[in-house]
Amino acid sequence: MSRTDLVARVRDFVEAHCLPLESPAHVHDPAALDAALATLRPIARAQGLYLPQMPVEQGGLGLGWADRAGVFEEAGRSYLGPGALNCAAPDQPNMISLLRQGNGEQQRRYLKPLADGDIRSCFAMTEPAPGAGSDPSMLRTRARRVAHGWVIDGHKWFITGAVDARFCIVLAQTDEGPTQFIVEMDAPGLQLVRAIRAIDPFAIGGHGELRFDACRVSDDAVLGEVGQGLAYAQQRLEPARLAHCMRLTGRARRAVEIAQAYVCERASFGQRLADLQQIQAMVADCHIDLHASRLMTQDCARRMDAGEPVKTESAMTKVFVSEALNRVADRAAQMCGAFGMSEDEPLALILRELRPFRIYDGASELHRATLGRRFLNTASRT
Amino acid sequence: MSRTDLVARVRDFVEAHCLPLESPAHVHDPAALDAALATLRPIARAQGLYLPQMPVEQGGLGLGWADRAGVFEEAGRSYLGPGALNCAAPDQPNMISLLRQGNGEQQRRYLKPLADGDIRSCFAMTEPAPGAGSDPSMLRTRARRVAHGWVIDGHKWFITGAVDARFCIVLAQTDEGPTQFIVEMDAPGLQLVRAIRAIDPFAIGGHGELRFDACRVSDDAVLGEVGQGLAYAQQRLEPARLAHCMRLTGRARRAVEIAQAYVCERASFGQRLADLQQIQAMVADCHIDLHASRLMTQDCARRMDAGEPVKTESAMTKVFVSEALNRVADRAAQMCGAFGMSEDEPLALILRELRPFRIYDGASELHRATLGRRFLNTASRT
Amino acid sequence: MSRTDLVARVRDFVEAHCLPLESPAHVHDPAALDAALATLRPIARAQGLYLPQMPVEQGGLGLGWADRAGVFEEAGRSYLGPGALNCAAPDQPNMISLLRQGNGEQQRRYLKPLADGDIRSCFAMTEPAPGAGSDPSMLRTRARRVAHGWVIDGHKWFITGAVDARFCIVLAQTDEGPTQFIVEMDAPGLQLVRAIRAIDPFAIGGHGELRFDACRVSDDAVLGEVGQGLAYAQQRLEPARLAHCMRLTGRARRAVEIAQAYVCERASFGQRLADLQQIQAMVADCHIDLHASRLMTQDCARRMDAGEPVKTESAMTKVFVSEALNRVADRAAQMCGAFGMSEDEPLALILRELRPFRIYDGASELHRATLGRRFLNTASRT
Amino acid sequence: MSRTDLVARVRDFVEAHCLPLESPAHVHDPAALDAALATLRPIARAQGLYLPQMPVEQGGLGLGWADRAGVFEEAGRSYLGPGALNCAAPDQPNMISLLRQGNGEQQRRYLKPLADGDIRSCFAMTEPAPGAGSDPSMLRTRARRVAHGWVIDGHKWFITGAVDARFCIVLAQTDEGPTQFIVEMDAPGLQLVRAIRAIDPFAIGGHGELRFDACRVSDDAVLGEVGQGLAYAQQRLEPARLAHCMRLTGRARRAVEIAQAYVCERASFGQRLADLQQIQAMVADCHIDLHASRLMTQDCARRMDAGEPVKTESAMTKVFVSEALNRVADRAAQMCGAFGMSEDEPLALILRELRPFRIYDGASELHRATLGRRFLNTASRT
Repeated sequence: MSRTDLVARVRDFVEAHCLPLESPAHVHDPAALDAALATLRPIARAQGLYLPQMPVEQGGLGLGWADRAGVFEEAGRSYLGPGALNCAAPDQPNMISLLRQGNGEQQRRYLKPLADGDIRSCFAMTEPAPGAGSDPSMLRTRARRVAHGWVIDGHKWFITGAVDARFCIVLAQTDEGPTQFIVEMDAPGLQLVRAIRAIDPFAIGGHGELRFDACRVSDDAVLGEVGQGLAYAQQRLEPARLAHCMRLTGRARRAVEIAQAYVCERASFGQRLADLQQIQAMVADCHIDLHASRLMTQDCARRMDAGEPVKTESAMTKVFVSEALNRVADRAAQMCGAFGMSEDEPLALILRELRPFRIYDGASELHRATLGRRFLNTASRT
Repeated sequence: MSRTDLVARVRDFVEAHCLPLESPAHVHDPAALDAALATLRPIARAQGLYLPQMPVEQGGLGLGWADRAGVFEEAGRSYLGPGALNCAAPDQPNMISLLRQGNGEQQRRYLKPLADGDIRSCFAMTEPAPGAGSDPSMLRTRARRVAHGWVIDGHKWFITGAVDARFCIVLAQTDEGPTQFIVEMDAPGLQLVRAIRAIDPFAIGGHGELRFDACRVSDDAVLGEVGQGLAYAQQRLEPARLAHCMRLTGRARRAVEIAQAYVCERASFGQRLADLQQIQAMVADCHIDLHASRLMTQDCARRMDAGEPVKTESAMTKVFVSEALNRVADRAAQMCGAFGMSEDEPLALILRELRPFRIYDGASELHRATLGRRFLNTASRT
Repeated sequence: MSRTDLVARVRDFVEAHCLPLESPAHVHDPAALDAALATLRPIARAQGLYLPQMPVEQGGLGLGWADRAGVFEEAGRSYLGPGALNCAAPDQPNMISLLRQGNGEQQRRYLKPLADGDIRSCFAMTEPAPGAGSDPSMLRTRARRVAHGWVIDGHKWFITGAVDARFCIVLAQTDEGPTQFIVEMDAPGLQLVRAIRAIDPFAIGGHGELRFDACRVSDDAVLGEVGQGLAYAQQRLEPARLAHCMRLTGRARRAVEIAQAYVCERASFGQRLADLQQIQAMVADCHIDLHASRLMTQDCARRMDAGEPVKTESAMTKVFVSEALNRVADRAAQMCGAFGMSEDEPLALILRELRPFRIYDGASELHRATLGRRFLNTASRT
Repeated sequence: MSRTDLVARVRDFVEAHCLPLESPAHVHDPAALDAALATLRPIARAQGLYLPQMPVEQGGLGLGWADRAGVFEEAGRSYLGPGALNCAAPDQPNMISLLRQGNGEQQRRYLKPLADGDIRSCFAMTEPAPGAGSDPSMLRTRARRVAHGWVIDGHKWFITGAVDARFCIVLAQTDEGPTQFIVEMDAPGLQLVRAIRAIDPFAIGGHGELRFDACRVSDDAVLGEVGQGLAYAQQRLEPARLAHCMRLTGRARRAVEIAQAYVCERASFGQRLADLQQIQAMVADCHIDLHASRLMTQDCARRMDAGEPVKTESAMTKVFVSEALNRVADRAAQMCGAFGMSEDEPLALILRELRPFRIYDGASELHRATLGRRFLNTASRT
C-alpha cells in the first residue's frame, strides 16, 4: 500500500468510525474514552492501519517520520483517531523509549502489551513547584539504592495518561544522575492522588498527580543506563513534540472544515457568510497557517529520517505550529458565532484541546529564549 | 458612602465571601451556582452593596453608568460577584427594560421579585439558522393576535439564564413589527428543550434552547408598545455590552493577579519567573490592555450618563475590550504554565468565560464592518 | 475663545496654510523646512494660535495639558503644524526646561527668542555606544570645573534639531553628578559633525552628531542646579512623550483621512474599495486605535494637570500610542495600494515619520520591562 | 560546481564586492545604481555567477526554481546583488517572457542584450485610477490596428525600471483582447512623464509614469499572440512573485545579521542587549519567520520545477512571506534602537525596501479574498 493510499484509508477510517463515536460525554471521562478506543482498535487493525509508527517486527507499519506526518494528521482530525491507531501520546513515545532503551525482558513485559493495545502507560517527569517544571535540573524526586533495588520518593503532576495506566516511566534523581525507572502503577508506595482537571477535555488517561512514598522497585526497573535519564528525556522530547504537531494539525484542520461548511450554509444581513470578505480572509489565513505548519513539520521529519540533528528546527517548529494551530482553531470558532461556542459541534472543544500545546513540551517563551540565545551565540562566534 | 469607599467595600466583599465560595463544581451546574448566590446575596444586602445599578426607589444604590464601572469591575473579579450583587446579565438589563417599558402591573409582578433576587429571568432573541442570529431582521419567531391575546410560535437558542428562570422577555415578529413579550417559563406551549453546553462554564441559568409551540399569552404580556421590539432591543444592547465590559474587566484582572503572584513565587532555570523579561513584558501588556479597556468603558459610561448617543463609541468599546480582555487572560494563563491550564486555579476557566465575549452581543467582525461603513459614509459626505 | 473654538481654528489654519505648503522637497532639508515655518508663524500668531503651551505672560495661550491635546492633534495633522505654532519638539520641552530651571538672565537670553520663534534649540543627551543610549547612567560626556567655568568633552548623536540651532541643552557628567548646561552652538570646541540621515523625513533641524572637544563654558551655562541633571531629564521626558502622542495622533489621523477618501473613490473588480469588508475592518481598527490613543493621552494629561504622578500612566501611554499609531498609518498606506507607497500623497512619508516613535523617548521593550517590574513589585508587596 | 558551492560563492561575492559598494547615495538615484551594477557585473560574470536563472544556451547557469532559491537569497542580502547577477526584477521576468513568447528576431534584438546586461527594460501594466490597478480587467490603455502596425494610447504608472530602460513590454487592450507589445522607450508618442518617488529607495530604474499618445509601433512589436496578453501576464506573475520572495528573504536576513551583531556588542542598564529575553525572543521570531518563509518558497519552487499548478501555493507564499519579512525587518530595526532608524546601517532602508512587497504583485487583502473564495468553493463542492 502506497503512502498516499494509506493516508486516504486513514481518512476514510476516521470518517466512518471515529467521528460518529465522538461525544461530549467523553469530556473528562477517561473510562468512557478508553471504551471508545477499545471499540475502534480492532477495526483499525483489521484495516491495516494500526501502529503506523512501530517497526514491522513489532507489529507496526514501519513508517518513517516523513511518512507518519500525513497519517498522524488524518488520524488527528478526531480526538479518537490517534488512540484508535495506537499512535497517541504518551504511549507512542513510551514505545519508542522501550524500543531504544528497554532490555529483552522489559520489552516482553511492557512493550508487547502496549503495542498490542492491552495496557496503557504514562511518563512521569513534571513536578509541582519548587520541583522540575520546564527545567529538568530542578528534579526533586529521588531514588536511592537499597539492596537489590531502589526506593523512590517524590511528587509528580500533570502526568498525562496516569488514570488506569499499567505502568509509568518515572524520571528520578540518583547519586549517579537522573535515571529512568519503570514503575507499575499498583506498586506499594505509589499513589495516584487525583486526576487534575485541565482545560483539554480528551486526554487519554487524564492528567494525574502521583506521590511516591518510599516506593520500592527492583534493579530491573531501571530503563536504560543509570544516570542517563536526562539524555533519554531530551531524545524523547524532540520526536514527541513533532508527533504532537502532526496530530494536532489534523485537529485544527477539522475545525476549519466545520467552519467552512457552516459559513457556506449560514446567511446574515442578506449575504451568505462565505461571501463576506472578512470571512474569506479568515479562511485564507487558516490555510496559510496550516500550510506553513505542515511544511515545517515535514522538513523536521525529513531531517530526523536522515539522522540529522533537529534541536533548532524542532524548537522552531513547536513554537510556530502550536501558535499557528491555536490561531486556526480560534478563527474557525469565531466564524461560527454562538454555534462555535457550543459543544454541539467540537469547535469549542478543539479550542480547549489545542490551548495547552503552547505550554506542554516547553512553553513558547522558554523555546524563544533558548532559540534566541543559540542564534546569538552562533552570530557572535562568526 | 463615597464611590471610592463603595468600590473598596465591594472588593472586600468579593475577597471575603465570593472567592472562597468559588468551585470547579459550579462548572455547567446552574443549580449549584444559584445556591451559592443565595448564600451571598443576603450578605451583600446587609453590607449595602446590593443592586448598585437600580434607582434608590427600586431598592438599588442608584449609581449612574460612570459610577457603576468600578463597582462592576470589582464584583466581576469573581464569577459569583455580579450575581451576588444582583447586577449580572441577563437580569440586570431585563430590570432596565422592565423599568423603562414595563407598566405598573408588570413592574409589580416581574421587576419587584427580580430586584429582590427571588426569581431569575432571561431574554430570548437569538434563533438557530435560518433565523435571527446577529441580524434581527431575520426574526422567524412569530406572534399572531387572537382574542384577548397572542399565540407565539418559534425556536430560540443560546438564551442565557433560561434554566430555572421564572420568565423570559421574548422578541417575536408580529404583523405590526417586532414586539417584546413577557412569557412565564411554565406557560403552556413553551418548552425548555435543553441547556446548551457552551465553552463558558459559569453562566447563571446556563444557555437554553426554547421552543414556542402555539404558546398562548394574554394581552398584558406585551412589554412596551407593539411593533417597537427592535428599537427596544437596540436600546438594550448598548448598555448591556458596556456592563459586560465592566464585569469582565474585573474577571481578566483577577487572572493577572493570580499570574503575578505565581511568577513572583515560581523559579525556573535559576531565576524567578518574575525576573524574566518576557514575563515582565507580558505583565506590562496586561496592564496596558486593562488600562485602555477601562478608559474606553468609562468614556462611554460618561457619555451615557450625559445622555449622548454612543452607538459608535459603544461598538468600538465592545470590540476593543472583548479582544483586549482575551489577550490579558491568555497571557495570564500562559505565564502560569501547566498550572495555568489546570482548574486548580481559575485561569483556564477564566479563559473559557471570556472567549465568547468576542461573539456574544455582536461578533467583532460584525461590529468592524458596521463601524467601517459608518466612518466611510461620514468621510465621503465631507 | 473656548477650547472647542480653538481646536476648530487650528484645524482651519492647518487646512488653509500648512497642508498647501507641504512638499516632498522638504524631505531631509532642514533649511527648506525652516523657511516654510517662517512663512507660517506670522499667520499663526495673527490668528491667535501661536505658542499654545506657554503661559500667557510668556506670550503663549496658557493651555493646560488636557487642553493641549486637541490643539496639538490638530496641529499634528501636518508636519508643518506644530512648528508653525511653535509647539514642536525639541523647542517645546526646552522652553519648559528654561521656564522651570532657567534663571532670569537665561530666560531673557534663550527663552525669549525661542518663544518668539527667532531661534531654534536642541537637547543633547543620547550618546553612541558605549555611552548613554536608553540608560542615562552610562553618560560619558564629562564636564569638569575650571576657573570661572567648565570644560566639556564628549560625543552626542541623534540630537534632534541640531542643524541651525542657536544653542543646545547638554547633559554631562560632573563630579557632583549629571548636570545640564546651555551651550551655544558656535562655542569653540563644539562641532556639529554631521546631520544623521534617519528614516523620519521631516525633523526640524534634523538629527545632529555633536562633538565637544575641550568646549569651555562659563559658570552661568549651568541650567538648574549642578548634579540635578538626571532628575531634570526625567521630569522632562514624561511631558515630552505625551506631547509627541498628541501631535502624532494628528499625523496618523491624516493618513486615515487620505485613505478613506481614496477607498471611497477607487474601484477594483467591480466594487468600490470602501464596500469591501476587509477595507471596512481596517478603517474600523484605525478609529478604534485612535480613540484608545486619545483616551490614554487625555487621561495622562488630566493627571498631569492635577499634579498627580504619571510615571506608570505615561509609560503605558507611550507604548500603546506609539504602536497604535504605527498600526493606523500602516493600514492607511496599505488601503491605498501602490499610491500609498508613493510620495504623491504623504502616506509613505507618514509611515516613516511615525516609525521612530516606537524607539525615541524609550523603546517599547524598555518601557515594557520597566512597567512589568513595577507591577510585579507592587504585586509581591501585597 | 554543486549547488551548495554556488550558494557559497554567491555569498562570498556579495560580501567581497556588493556590500562594500552599498551607499545611501544610491537612494532614489537610478543612474548611480546603474553605475554600481556596471562595476559588479563583470566580476560576477568572471566568477561564473552571472544569469543563474537563464538556460545555458542563453549564457545562463541553467538553474531550476528550487536551485535558484538559495542563490537568489544570497544575492538578495545586498540590494546590489540581484542586479549584479542580472537576476533582478523586472529584467528577470522580462527575459522569461521573451524566452517563452518572443520570436527569433525579438530574442536577438531584445533578449540578447538584456541577458548580456547591455540594456534594461520594464513591464508596463499598472494604470492610475480608474484604470487597471490590481484588476487587469480594468485595462484602459488601448492599441488599435492601423496599416502595418498599431497605435497605442494610454497612461501607466509605477512602472518599475522605466528610467533609462531601452524598451518596455506594455499590456494594452485591443479589439481582440489584451495584448503584449514591445515598445522602445524612445518611440515617438511614448513619454516618461516622471519618476515616481516611492518608499523603496533602491529600485533599479525607479518607478516611472508613462504616457502613450498615439504611439505607433509596427506589427512585429506584438509579443506572443494578439489577445493573449492577460494569460501571459498571469503566467508571468506567479514566478515573478516567487523570485521576489527569494531575493527579499536575503534582504531581511541581512537586517537580522546586522541586528544580531549589534545586540551582541551593545550594553544597556548593565547588560548586553543579547542577554535580555525580549531581544532573544525577537531574534527567535526572526529566524522562525525566515525558516517558514524559505520552506514555503522552496515548496512552491519544487512544484514549479515539477510542472505542477501553483496558483494557490504561490498566493499563500506571497502573502505569508511578504508579511513575515516585514516583521523580520521591523524587529531587526527595533533591536538596534536609534541606530536602527539611521541610514548609517541599512536597517531603516531595508524597512523601506520591504514595505511595498505587501502591496506590489497583489496586495495581501486581494490574495486573501481570492484564496478564501477558492477554499470555500472547494469546500462547498465536497
